[in-house]
Amino acid sequence: MLRSFAVCRGTQAGDAPGAYSPVVSHLRQLSFVASNPTCVGPFPAFAEVTPGLGRRTRLGRVTNPLSAAPGAPLRLVVLVSGSGTLLQALIDAAGEPGFPARIVAVGADREGTLGVERAVGAGIPSFVVAPGTYADRAAWDAALAAAIASYSPELVVSAGFMRILGPAVLDGSRIINTHPALLPSFPGAHGVRDALAHGVRVTGTTCHWVDAGVDTGPIIDQRAVRVEPGDTEESLHERIKVEERALLVDVVRALAGQIQLDFAQVK
Amino acid sequence: MLRSFAVCRGTQAGDAPGAYSPVVSHLRQLSFVASNPTCVGPFPAFAEVTPGLGRRTRLGRVTNPLSAAPGAPLRLVVLVSGSGTLLQALIDAAGEPGFPARIVAVGADREGTLGVERAVGAGIPSFVVAPGTYADRAAWDAALAAAIASYSPELVVSAGFMRILGPAVLDGSRIINTHPALLPSFPGAHGVRDALAHGVRVTGTTCHWVDAGVDTGPIIDQRAVRVEPGDTEESLHERIKVEERALLVDVVRALAGQIQLDFAQVK
Repeated sequence: MLRSFAVCRGTQAGDAPGAYSPVVSHLRQLSFVASNPTCVGPFPAFAEVTPGLGRRTRLGRVTNPLSAAPGAPLRLVVLVSGSGTLLQALIDAAGEPGFPARIVAVGADREGTLGVERAVGAGIPSFVVAPGTYADRAAWDAALAAAIASYSPELVVSAGFMRILGPAVLDGSRIINTHPALLPSFPGAHGVRDALAHGVRVTGTTCHWVDAGVDTGPIIDQRAVRVEPGDTEESLHERIKVEERALLVDVVRALAGQIQLDFAQVK
Repeated sequence: MLRSFAVCRGTQAGDAPGAYSPVVSHLRQLSFVASNPTCVGPFPAFAEVTPGLGRRTRLGRVTNPLSAAPGAPLRLVVLVSGSGTLLQALIDAAGEPGFPARIVAVGADREGTLGVERAVGAGIPSFVVAPGTYADRAAWDAALAAAIASYSPELVVSAGFMRILGPAVLDGSRIINTHPALLPSFPGAHGVRDALAHGVRVTGTTCHWVDAGVDTGPIIDQRAVRVEPGDTEESLHERIKVEERALLVDVVRALAGQIQLDFAQVK
């Protein structure tokens, strides 16, 4: 069966080695991209452009390059720490007919989060792995990895999960994260505040693969957000969150093979 | 006479000290902003939004906060090193009726640039101050400062000028520069190449005040540009240049008081 891969640059089989993106390189390290990925085409497709410079092409058919069962919905575990608004965006999207992913579990790092409440309300299994209940960070890391693995996800989404993930989780899963700034600018816990303090006029949001660093993994996609007159950290963050939610849903669609992101690559 | 100042955040007289922007702070250091700048309003105005997230409000009347003669066109000296496409954008804009600035001279760091040819073609005085003809960097710096000062500019535009400016020029002039990336990401001579190599999906262009650092001065405005499939350094740079030229022209209009940039500030 011909497998398609949505996040390539329109590469043709036979292109020179090394011509692929950091994203594809990262996926290859994770052993789920063939050594010579191909884009299947032509696709019946349409393109749309969002205000934040998000542009995507919806494909006429769905493949699922991350799935062990192509055509089946992508199995997601979503990790949350707080109110779970990013999770809610995924829950809402998953409720739409034809969404190519399914949230198989929601994990949290503490009891009583609104994120877990949202999961319960949507009938999604949930689990809590709280660092305080483990002897050390390594034990917590192993427990979280085991909890995630028990749901056999094909993709883990860090959706406002405010803990640095350890090697057991990182080695065992393909993980994406969103960040409220245009990385590599303003990594860390205060991306919005830092951008405002620097005086930038354009900031935004980034969806990236998670690696061992803080917001250093390969960038999957980004959306720009303009700083407006009188913006406070809160007002700017609210507008970024709107783009961040749409970005995350679109990246999940892309990784599930439903839309083609217009990834450009260095030749 | 009531003086308006275009690059404030809609501040009212009486606002707390320190509530102004890095841009205003920088201008104040340069001693050409009153200690309590005010925005005059309401303005007869219209807003327009550009694809790169540039948003501006055109004011119904022109004041010139940088000019010794309010209402007179802003006197510009434009510094070039190469082909002068940014200069051409300013020449073209200055040819439009009502443009609030006038290029009084074009300076270059070497003989035979296309930039100087453009100046000659447009009937604009030009000068060359080449480092090789001076004993040391300090002497070159002083000569360049003197050449600039002889035209009594109110604003100096570094338009693709590929030299680090010295203290004599920096102390003697208000200088703006454009950079082909969304600072603080990717400063330096290879902003486009570095952005592509990093794998960002959104980059852009920044107009900023020039200080002693490399692309470190306070940001005036920015425009976002999306990285497209198959982009090379050249193709991406060409699209950035389109935004860069429009951004520069708009910033000059704003600094001349003709349009109001929607500068947001941290409170």
